[in-house]
Amino acid sequence: MTTFAGLFVPAALRETVSDAAWLRAMLRAELALAHAAGTEVDETAFDASHYDIAALCEEGRAAGNPVEPLVRALRARAGDGVHRGATSQDVLDTAAMLVARDAVGAILSELDGAEAACARLADTHRSAPMAARTLLQQAVPTTFGYTAARWLAGLLGARTRLGALRYPAQLGGAAGTLAAFGDRGLDIRSRFAAELELDDELVPWHAERSPVAALASALDAAARAADKIALDVVLLAQTEVGEVAERAGGVSSAMPHKRNPARAVRARACARLTHASAGVLTGGEHELERAAGAWHAEWPALTSTLAYAGGAVAAVRECLDGLEVDTERMRANMSDDLYAEQRSLGLDGDYLGAAEAFVDRVLDRYRT
Amino acid sequence: MTTFAGLFVPAALRETVSDAAWLRAMLRAELALAHAAGTEVDETAFDASHYDIAALCEEGRAAGNPVEPLVRALRARAGDGVHRGATSQDVLDTAAMLVARDAVGAILSELDGAEAACARLADTHRSAPMAARTLLQQAVPTTFGYTAARWLAGLLGARTRLGALRYPAQLGGAAGTLAAFGDRGLDIRSRFAAELELDDELVPWHAERSPVAALASALDAAARAADKIALDVVLLAQTEVGEVAERAGGVSSAMPHKRNPARAVRARACARLTHASAGVLTGGEHELERAAGAWHAEWPALTSTLAYAGGAVAAVRECLDGLEVDTERMRANMSDDLYAEQRSLGLDGDYLGAAEAFVDRVLDRYRT
Amino acid sequence: MTTFAGLFVPAALRETVSDAAWLRAMLRAELALAHAAGTEVDETAFDASHYDIAALCEEGRAAGNPVEPLVRALRARAGDGVHRGATSQDVLDTAAMLVARDAVGAILSELDGAEAACARLADTHRSAPMAARTLLQQAVPTTFGYTAARWLAGLLGARTRLGALRYPAQLGGAAGTLAAFGDRGLDIRSRFAAELELDDELVPWHAERSPVAALASALDAAARAADKIALDVVLLAQTEVGEVAERAGGVSSAMPHKRNPARAVRARACARLTHASAGVLTGGEHELERAAGAWHAEWPALTSTLAYAGGAVAAVRECLDGLEVDTERMRANMSDDLYAEQRSLGLDGDYLGAAEAFVDRVLDRYRT
Amino acid sequence: MTTFAGLFVPAALRETVSDAAWLRAMLRAELALAHAAGTEVDETAFDASHYDIAALCEEGRAAGNPVEPLVRALRARAGDGVHRGATSQDVLDTAAMLVARDAVGAILSELDGAEAACARLADTHRSAPMAARTLLQQAVPTTFGYTAARWLAGLLGARTRLGALRYPAQLGGAAGTLAAFGDRGLDIRSRFAAELELDDELVPWHAERSPVAALASALDAAARAADKIALDVVLLAQTEVGEVAERAGGVSSAMPHKRNPARAVRARACARLTHASAGVLTGGEHELERAAGAWHAEWPALTSTLAYAGGAVAAVRECLDGLEVDTERMRANMSDDLYAEQRSLGLDGDYLGAAEAFVDRVLDRYRT
Repeated sequence: MTTFAGLFVPAALRETVSDAAWLRAMLRAELALAHAAGTEVDETAFDASHYDIAALCEEGRAAGNPVEPLVRALRARAGDGVHRGATSQDVLDTAAMLVARDAVGAILSELDGAEAACARLADTHRSAPMAARTLLQQAVPTTFGYTAARWLAGLLGARTRLGALRYPAQLGGAAGTLAAFGDRGLDIRSRFAAELELDDELVPWHAERSPVAALASALDAAARAADKIALDVVLLAQTEVGEVAERAGGVSSAMPHKRNPARAVRARACARLTHASAGVLTGGEHELERAAGAWHAEWPALTSTLAYAGGAVAAVRECLDGLEVDTERMRANMSDDLYAEQRSLGLDGDYLGAAEAFVDRVLDRYRT
Repeated sequence: MTTFAGLFVPAALRETVSDAAWLRAMLRAELALAHAAGTEVDETAFDASHYDIAALCEEGRAAGNPVEPLVRALRARAGDGVHRGATSQDVLDTAAMLVARDAVGAILSELDGAEAACARLADTHRSAPMAARTLLQQAVPTTFGYTAARWLAGLLGARTRLGALRYPAQLGGAAGTLAAFGDRGLDIRSRFAAELELDDELVPWHAERSPVAALASALDAAARAADKIALDVVLLAQTEVGEVAERAGGVSSAMPHKRNPARAVRARACARLTHASAGVLTGGEHELERAAGAWHAEWPALTSTLAYAGGAVAAVRECLDGLEVDTERMRANMSDDLYAEQRSLGLDGDYLGAAEAFVDRVLDRYRT
Repeated sequence: MTTFAGLFVPAALRETVSDAAWLRAMLRAELALAHAAGTEVDETAFDASHYDIAALCEEGRAAGNPVEPLVRALRARAGDGVHRGATSQDVLDTAAMLVARDAVGAILSELDGAEAACARLADTHRSAPMAARTLLQQAVPTTFGYTAARWLAGLLGARTRLGALRYPAQLGGAAGTLAAFGDRGLDIRSRFAAELELDDELVPWHAERSPVAALASALDAAARAADKIALDVVLLAQTEVGEVAERAGGVSSAMPHKRNPARAVRARACARLTHASAGVLTGGEHELERAAGAWHAEWPALTSTLAYAGGAVAAVRECLDGLEVDTERMRANMSDDLYAEQRSLGLDGDYLGAAEAFVDRVLDRYRT
Repeated sequence: MTTFAGLFVPAALRETVSDAAWLRAMLRAELALAHAAGTEVDETAFDASHYDIAALCEEGRAAGNPVEPLVRALRARAGDGVHRGATSQDVLDTAAMLVARDAVGAILSELDGAEAACARLADTHRSAPMAARTLLQQAVPTTFGYTAARWLAGLLGARTRLGALRYPAQLGGAAGTLAAFGDRGLDIRSRFAAELELDDELVPWHAERSPVAALASALDAAARAADKIALDVVLLAQTEVGEVAERAGGVSSAMPHKRNPARAVRARACARLTHASAGVLTGGEHELERAAGAWHAEWPALTSTLAYAGGAVAAVRECLDGLEVDTERMRANMSDDLYAEQRSLGLDGDYLGAAEAFVDRVLDRYRT
């Protein structure tokens, strides 16, 4: 089920969404609950090394989730107060947000690198002429710097969305009423969220999954911004175009002379996988107080969405870091027709003032 | 291709996304461009009554879009200055935003009504006990007001997203460089956006489709919030549950005695259709300066997404407006076990303080 | 909600899935039921001209489907025996199969044309060398005829799937038990299917939607086979490649000199829309004896799937019919490296025997 | 990236799609190629224990696939003849079919069990009356045996599709022309397929992915048939309905008294995940002779589709094996209205002859 994950997702990012990371996050949620509720527990019991995630999953088949066996194991070590007043979903949803926050942090680092690379390309090639292509036909002149600036604008938009994400804690008890806490419920809920530095959502979101859907949409947007760049690189790197090339491009097992845009290819694959997983998270129907299936499908789907969105951004960052740009080829590729329209309007055929102004706009936005 | 659209989407909303509305929006964009560029044109030519959308589509098959034949027809009436410096996508993208803004306005009106109905239900039944159900099994007590308050919270979240949408104008010329306008490009672009009261996006978004994807995600979120309510109504209206019923429920052709939750059913159907269309808008790959297919697929997909999201919200508004609530049945349905856990904790079995507090929170948010 | 349908879907195909076609199919189902059950009815009442589909939809909002008002109107004209023993879904599902069979027939005609064009290209250019491209990098030599033969193989596969489709009648009565027909149920069901020349499915499929999902998958496969060709044409038609061109290619509103592969572009757009609609049909959950929403979503989704799959095939047929092939450019584009590997193996660099043999294989299959 | 895979997918099935299984399948393909081409190789080198899949993935990042480093490692042990004339995709596609065939075999075993359980239920409860529910409203009487028979019909349909799948070998060389094999290409290809007992497809399918899409559709159909059963079980197991229950149902961490239909819930989650993954496989665009991304996305997507489809079927098998059926509750739940229509037609209110006949039909089909 990991098929070649190492190929698509960098190790550091994979670690943030591993089963081990989920286990640690669940334990962190349980401990924070004990603190918030003032329950006496043995804190040494909350160390992940005591638990075997594979065994918990196997046991969890009966209950349909891994928290039930984890709570039993935890109680055996830490005492009966563990999990008091909570439901499995409180722990899993809170853990999901902890995992997601960490993974998004890692993705933002990759995004930093990708943005910086785009900014360098935009700046360096601000005025380097190349053919703009619409429907993959040469249309009019543009500059490569402007192309890179538009890539950068896409990444900045993705960053804004990722940066605006909220990570709410989940604590509602058996069905969102916090009833087992008596009149301390709202207070415990606030302290629980505060300890984990998570948001205190208006109401429990056991079956109203906006926070999860928002995460999915923002991650899909990040993958889409990366995918746009990857697609353009693949197209500009075609043998017949040859305007860019990945440094030390992919090696072919059959044709050692080929220079494949392997990183861009990986980014496109990751973006496709992200989009499919994200659709699981934005499309579920959650019945009444807890869904009978749509919730459970979220765990693998969220994990994949985080991993592949990160894989897409990372692959594009790698791709751009070593991108070779052949401005002579760009100029040579431009067909004579390209300037015709501009000349017919009485303009200097090379007129690219607005394109350059757009580059400056985007770089300004990037730098602020 | 409209299959039974009248069944799913109210007439007023359908009108906002009709081919006629698209035509008017395209004409409005062309006229605004003429104004912004200071081009002399005959303004009477911009009246939609001169043009036949079906004929334009038929002619547009060759060019792959309806703007090219429209421009030819417009120029014949209004003069050669029409469309000067623009590309088909400038007109269609701008028209898409005009259409979307109008349709979202209509959806927000339906949302007003749905929210008001939820707020009434939450207020009226704030403390009315009912069984909470997780995995569709009775779990612990809750109140119907709290259920309605969570529905309302979902709708408020959807409103926030719809309200935050930006509608950028599109003006980039043949390939986003505004080259045909010479050094007046950025200035014309600003005036164009201002005349249409659209946003002035950082750079042209011909092939970086964040504005469209953001629309799709927000509309999908609105449909999802409606869908959540519809699903719960369908479940609570089951013969064996009978806690709510749509007023003058759907009639069955085979079983006149049946009382189907027809509005909720329609809302669920609309939400499924919205999600599928929205995925087209969030998942396209757009090549270089203009996509060879992914852009064209957006026109029907955006139209469907707007229409069905609106259909979902409208159906839920209708459903809630006439919702009959049977609080006696709610109480009678509650199994004896429901209070067991609370009693075992030494709490009053009826304790629902936090649920009521959540109702108040949501109503406060709604009223501000 | 038809947005520019005329642009994407040929008129003849659009007609097969129009609301009018659905209405006629519903009337045909009702009449066949009367015949099968031996009910006395006034046959003149079953003429579509008596009914207004828009009004039926408007009235159908209450019941959640258009059959209920149609039955009322029919009964007023034809007598109370109309629809006796049937449920709305019997009529709509049967109508769906009638509509689908007609539409698939129209699609198969377009497929004929596309196959013939591919076969001509494969035959004519069987040995015409061109560069094969993997990951969009030139790899080794191939022939254009082989490329066209692989396109043809894809279309033949799609035809096989479309040709194997079964179109079952639906007749189960209120909940699939045929109870209102007494012990004549199975017999009436057989006669009903026979009159409409539809299949007699093992059991009613009100909530087990294999027939609909199979349709969707086969239509998606047809669109995918068309899409593959369209994508390749777009890539081979790039300015920098220039190996093929659509005859009288698409006109650009901004750049009259451009020659866009507008038909291929339309095909790609249609394929995207087909895939999204098909997913609605393959992904629904249908509750117990009739779904509360997933069924209703099928009507527009099936219509769109039929229309856009047909649009994709038709666009590719148009594209291939006028495809200009530049074999000199193909040869000129081949980089010197392409033959290196083959020479290193001691083979004639031009060796393309297996490619030619594959062309012959596919043409043999096509001709039988 | 495995998130809680053990919870959703039985160990035996997980093993068939593990990275280790993929590695073994790739090695098997390489060895079969050596045999087919008559290349001298050291066969001991083809044992999976020599290779570290994690390291291969890490190394494979540069090439964008795991075959390239595997071939280098294999050549070091087995000699330079390894992989001669093949491309990475030949090995990965062939391995995919080997993996898929094994996994489908395991799924068919689970399907056997699910079918047997349905058949038992249909037989035992052939005439046990219960309320049929349309739009989740009680409609008319049916029998539980008929319900189970329709479930069985769905499973039989899924089996037919899975059973009809073809698993083609892939051997085309660098770009599908088999050129490096000279005039022995077609012959080697046949022997390659024969050694692996795979089909000999008409032409290489590097970029025409019907075999993969057909797999995905059939697996999605299997998951959908399981999902239908799971949904119905969840609905019939509701506290207020109580007509069926899973034996030793799922335990709740918050409410030990609850009896959750955990297996059905798992099946629904698996079906959602299957559908999303399958969409990746049916929706990709594959450029020219090898796709730049869409192919790479298939590896994880195919793995997930196989695993979750299997998980869905297995969960339903477990669910049905222990299903408790409460026929008294079924009878008690039937509202008095249910018989009204039948009585009004002069029929025995209990008339269920056609339902019983359908049960017999399905059992006959099952037994043959």
